[in-house]
Amino acid sequence: MAETDILLQELESSGILRLTLNDVARRNALSEAMLDRLEQAFAEAGQNTDVRVVVLAANGPAFCAGHDLKEMTAGRADDDGGQAYFARIMAKCSGVMQAIVNCPKPVIAEVSGIATAAGCQLVASCDLAVAEEDAKFSTPGVHIGLFCSTPMVALSRNVASKHAMEMLLTGDMTPAARAAEIGLVNRIAPKGELQQATMDLARKIASKSSMTLATGKRAFYAQREMPLAEAYDYASKVMVENMLARDAQEGIGAFIEKRAPSWEDR
Amino acid sequence: MAETDILLQELESSGILRLTLNDVARRNALSEAMLDRLEQAFAEAGQNTDVRVVVLAANGPAFCAGHDLKEMTAGRADDDGGQAYFARIMAKCSGVMQAIVNCPKPVIAEVSGIATAAGCQLVASCDLAVAEEDAKFSTPGVHIGLFCSTPMVALSRNVASKHAMEMLLTGDMTPAARAAEIGLVNRIAPKGELQQATMDLARKIASKSSMTLATGKRAFYAQREMPLAEAYDYASKVMVENMLARDAQEGIGAFIEKRAPSWEDR
Amino acid sequence: MAETDILLQELESSGILRLTLNDVARRNALSEAMLDRLEQAFAEAGQNTDVRVVVLAANGPAFCAGHDLKEMTAGRADDDGGQAYFARIMAKCSGVMQAIVNCPKPVIAEVSGIATAAGCQLVASCDLAVAEEDAKFSTPGVHIGLFCSTPMVALSRNVASKHAMEMLLTGDMTPAARAAEIGLVNRIAPKGELQQATMDLARKIASKSSMTLATGKRAFYAQREMPLAEAYDYASKVMVENMLARDAQEGIGAFIEKRAPSWEDR
Repeated sequence: MAETDILLQELESSGILRLTLNDVARRNALSEAMLDRLEQAFAEAGQNTDVRVVVLAANGPAFCAGHDLKEMTAGRADDDGGQAYFARIMAKCSGVMQAIVNCPKPVIAEVSGIATAAGCQLVASCDLAVAEEDAKFSTPGVHIGLFCSTPMVALSRNVASKHAMEMLLTGDMTPAARAAEIGLVNRIAPKGELQQATMDLARKIASKSSMTLATGKRAFYAQREMPLAEAYDYASKVMVENMLARDAQEGIGAFIEKRAPSWEDR
Repeated sequence: MAETDILLQELESSGILRLTLNDVARRNALSEAMLDRLEQAFAEAGQNTDVRVVVLAANGPAFCAGHDLKEMTAGRADDDGGQAYFARIMAKCSGVMQAIVNCPKPVIAEVSGIATAAGCQLVASCDLAVAEEDAKFSTPGVHIGLFCSTPMVALSRNVASKHAMEMLLTGDMTPAARAAEIGLVNRIAPKGELQQATMDLARKIASKSSMTLATGKRAFYAQREMPLAEAYDYASKVMVENMLARDAQEGIGAFIEKRAPSWEDR
Repeated sequence: MAETDILLQELESSGILRLTLNDVARRNALSEAMLDRLEQAFAEAGQNTDVRVVVLAANGPAFCAGHDLKEMTAGRADDDGGQAYFARIMAKCSGVMQAIVNCPKPVIAEVSGIATAAGCQLVASCDLAVAEEDAKFSTPGVHIGLFCSTPMVALSRNVASKHAMEMLLTGDMTPAARAAEIGLVNRIAPKGELQQATMDLARKIASKSSMTLATGKRAFYAQREMPLAEAYDYASKVMVENMLARDAQEGIGAFIEKRAPSWEDR
């Protein structure tokens, strides 16, 4: 019997790449193998002009349970007690999270089941997230003596301070409805309608100009870290370049002429 | 017949300056002429000691539809394809948005109808916003190949990341009630009661000391960009200066003596 | 009759230190004496290994009414009109607020009654906050000519811009339910159940490893001020060190072996 493929990839004709975490037996843990696969998948998605939007989904009852604690524990057998290994894993994991942020294609999390620790971080790192009504989120590191310090980098850039702190200090599960209230996910889908809801959202975005989406996504995360005046200088330059691009000329022309636009890469 | 005045100005005896976008035929687009008028109006409001609070309102079914796309498109006829012109317009528009932030008087958006693209940015740039219950907000640049990169500077400083990204990536309309939930506007007024609700809020603020409001507004936006320790050092200095000002002495004295304060500029 | 102790301290066997503001006659104002007591209490709590979580509560109808305006006003009699005195008080108050943030133990506000000005800032400065259903919050400095500039440093790091600005510019009271909606407090407790709700939350957190809580809290506030890439580099290092600590080894081991962990300092 063939080895299970832990990350399924399916590219729809609409330009939506579905990445499905498929290491069900390990609750889709971010093992070293899974991190490698995700890193590669996002790098390829960024390069592939057929990919317009990425959906990150999962099979099984857990969206993603975070790091693979057994694998991490095995690392302790190294001569340095695991220090170099842990550093490599953390760098790799932080790299994957930033690969999502830096991917020129919008990335949407499609969350069913539980998303915990680095699994919750995955959701927070995506540009958008849709959660099934019984999905749950937590940063439970405090239960095992390992604070969710890297997950909180993403979490604290999504939700208000006291909401982040409550999740981090208690390790409690946050139900989907509450996750939507605090801004961790965009919306809730009824049971059984998650994929449909997420794909509808993805298709809407996939119908836009890829150049425009890439321009805007990059600018969003860049300007967010600048003081206001600098952000405006930067964003104004982005707008001028965007105006001069073929798809803006086409899009604005189509709008004025009341016709559908035809994007360059379509 | 006289040319329409595209920006109406009315100064109430209470010290509230109403600026009303009045280019109804163009859905109050931020044409170059409109940007010039707004820039001048906020500069004058900042200087005029009779102005205590500014309300930014609009006539017609659109609060503001953003940039004037026909005017922008005409700029493409320039030798450089419009590059210098676009840069000038973007700088001017970003200047108006920052003029609102830097205006020493509190600025309140009174939003009826739709506020889109740079029109949504106007709302986000105001200190406070009241929206009529059927008002709508969007950053629809993705529909025309021109991502709302400058609007997102203001938007992303008002609402959570995923909420901003949803508006930016989909271009969908956000109804007033949702805009209130995510923090883009402060409150909703029932149909027909928008002006009353906004003016009540404005009058409450106009009854305060202008020196105090100017001190606080400036400090708010300045400290927000600093690390915590630096923000406290800065804000502590602001408080000391504020304590030594005549209106604080009067205000605190009045409070202790249980009488109404009498502000310096009243 | 003995002088009233303005700050009560009670250390539960569970490791929860209850600090109770007890200057009821002055509505628990942050007098110089109260600021000194709080500074000392948080310094000691930080050092005391028996203290695992701090709860900041209050006796009387006001949680805390902010600065002591009569004491501040008396300072005006100094030769410099109070300048040096005000500077000292502001530095001391900002020091207490930062002592809460920098305290290695989680700090939870237990808010009954009104929390105004620097009293509201106290709540915003705590890691978590529980409010009784009839508690109220405000930054009313505008009423007395003294903008709540230092409170806004904490407030604006808790709630969205327009929500903060509404409180600051109007000075209006925000009811507990609204404070929960905007993120100023985590949750509301029914009348009479505040202490129980807060202590339940505190006990849950107190059951975790103190090393882990201290590591995470420090990292939370540090990474929040960094750009994303730097935050990930920093947090990754924190995770590696945390992995190598005894309590993570024990906690992860206990998790894998399905037994309760035994923390180093318990």
